[in-house]
Amino acid sequence: MLEDKNQQRTSLASLGEFGLIDHLTQGIELKQPGTLTGIGDDAAVLDFKDKKTVVSTDMLVEGVHFDLAYMPLKHLGYKAVVVNISDICAMNATPTQITVSVAVSNRFPLEALEELYGGIKLAAKTYGVDIVGGDTTSSQKGMILSITALGEAQAEEITYRNGAGDSDLLIVTGDIGAAYMGLQVLEREKEVFKVNPNNQPDLDAYTYLIERQLKPEARKDIKALLKSLEIQPTAMIDVSDGLSSEIIHICKQSGVGCNLYEEKIPADPQLISACEEFNIDITTVAINGGEDYELLFTIKMEDYDKLKGNPNFTVIGHMAKESEGVHLITRANTKIPLKSRGWNALQEE
Amino acid sequence: MLEDKNQQRTSLASLGEFGLIDHLTQGIELKQPGTLTGIGDDAAVLDFKDKKTVVSTDMLVEGVHFDLAYMPLKHLGYKAVVVNISDICAMNATPTQITVSVAVSNRFPLEALEELYGGIKLAAKTYGVDIVGGDTTSSQKGMILSITALGEAQAEEITYRNGAGDSDLLIVTGDIGAAYMGLQVLEREKEVFKVNPNNQPDLDAYTYLIERQLKPEARKDIKALLKSLEIQPTAMIDVSDGLSSEIIHICKQSGVGCNLYEEKIPADPQLISACEEFNIDITTVAINGGEDYELLFTIKMEDYDKLKGNPNFTVIGHMAKESEGVHLITRANTKIPLKSRGWNALQEE
Repeated sequence: MLEDKNQQRTSLASLGEFGLIDHLTQGIELKQPGTLTGIGDDAAVLDFKDKKTVVSTDMLVEGVHFDLAYMPLKHLGYKAVVVNISDICAMNATPTQITVSVAVSNRFPLEALEELYGGIKLAAKTYGVDIVGGDTTSSQKGMILSITALGEAQAEEITYRNGAGDSDLLIVTGDIGAAYMGLQVLEREKEVFKVNPNNQPDLDAYTYLIERQLKPEARKDIKALLKSLEIQPTAMIDVSDGLSSEIIHICKQSGVGCNLYEEKIPADPQLISACEEFNIDITTVAINGGEDYELLFTIKMEDYDKLKGNPNFTVIGHMAKESEGVHLITRANTKIPLKSRGWNALQEE
Repeated sequence: MLEDKNQQRTSLASLGEFGLIDHLTQGIELKQPGTLTGIGDDAAVLDFKDKKTVVSTDMLVEGVHFDLAYMPLKHLGYKAVVVNISDICAMNATPTQITVSVAVSNRFPLEALEELYGGIKLAAKTYGVDIVGGDTTSSQKGMILSITALGEAQAEEITYRNGAGDSDLLIVTGDIGAAYMGLQVLEREKEVFKVNPNNQPDLDAYTYLIERQLKPEARKDIKALLKSLEIQPTAMIDVSDGLSSEIIHICKQSGVGCNLYEEKIPADPQLISACEEFNIDITTVAINGGEDYELLFTIKMEDYDKLKGNPNFTVIGHMAKESEGVHLITRANTKIPLKSRGWNALQEE
């Protein structure tokens, strides 16, 4: 799609690798006090002083993780950064730097990469992280993005997946399931577009859902919020593969069970009406959807009063002894075992 | 090629993403005192204490950076790690951790990924670095590898590209050009193989060249060696794109010129005879070849006596005022301007 509609095209080959890197990294400013040197040498040089360093990496592949038919390149760049920053936030750490590697087929013009980098730079600015390195090369087919995020935290702040106690409360930030339904809306529009390219879609009823899919945000705010409430979470993970899958990760690594209450799962009104329209069970969406990039964490029971009533948090369940297993308690009060049905990029089609 | 000849195949889909990661990361031990947590959480946690952190990233794409027709997967994994570690060494830092992201089409069996990871693990062991994170996903076509390397150094040890003075000496480790000729030998064998698949190639005369191409090593030893000689290099880079290109990087970033002496460039005897056989100019190969992963650095004139006669180092030229330009001084004593003709992955074919 993108490769047909561009009037202005500058071929990547005309710039060469070094010229392209110079061009795309123009205007990148370093703001983090810990960034001593960024792009331009064999490696970046960073100073974490007495803090611990946190590092995470993710690869996004066209046709597997994103579809350029409805994912604007600027949004893709933004989302790729957010996904990685979310992993740093899920350690209860503060994101500080990223490196960005991109492989594209030669058919992409320079203008497409500029759009992509526009989104990457915007996300870096929004989250206050420095772009300190990367690689730009060609691919045989499509676009592949690989981003590594670095962050910092005091040793005692870092929150792992394995610290949940069997009487802890399970909490999620924001609401869940909207990103998945946003994708369903976009997939439907793509099918409509195939039949009638002149159709002007009316997406007013789905704005929140689509934004959650195309421009998700990482919960960088939660670390400071929990600190101000004097809560140290016992375990934490971000909701990327789906709530069910993430709960199972925490349970498995902490050696505990869990009861998740269907009626407690926070859903946006747009999600509720879209699920009715699409005739999809909202709990299935909320549990298995993924890509919400909210934080899921556990706290000690005695910390409950500190966050009670805070609109950023919803208590959705409680941990249990490992032998009790991991269950969804439905509105009808039946117990259903939770399964890890997270999105699987390696499935055969 | 690889996809035809395997008798034993385990499909990646049968393992699922989490199962695959568990399987491939089996037996990964953490040896670095600075690695607090490795694979298995949202991010790895590292401790660089009072040292500075150095970070570098590289992406390798099948059909662009490597050809599985003659690059065994184990070698590919090894080389991908070496390439990144070499960037850390080129900062005069010590490599400590890596993250590894791999995208493969579903046609690759598990056994292929095991081979790849075998090479990655071997390189990690050889260089004493910990594998602390990564991502495994599917691609639309072929294999893509993205590796990020982290390292550490005291602030005063770190060597940038921009510190060369205009009277400094230019030095290279090991010998140059062999990796490029190794590739020429392999390309020729591939063409022979296409004509006659039963031909048994006799590659005895090219063993060193082929090893330099398929199993290069990073010069992790040089930092300690220079320290023991009490030499602090003024600028440093690794030879990945080609000697000419790297010299120009140092000159541009340091604001100096350079005279490179053709007769001084160190070449292995196998390279000399292969260049004769292939009727290729050896200096062209040495200057533009690339992928040697030797270190190129500058030192103050007064440090010359400290490394004189050391078989690891060859003085190949000296820096000059920026206005004098960057030249190759040929054996016939003519001055030819050096051009950056490093290998360009973005060239149109």
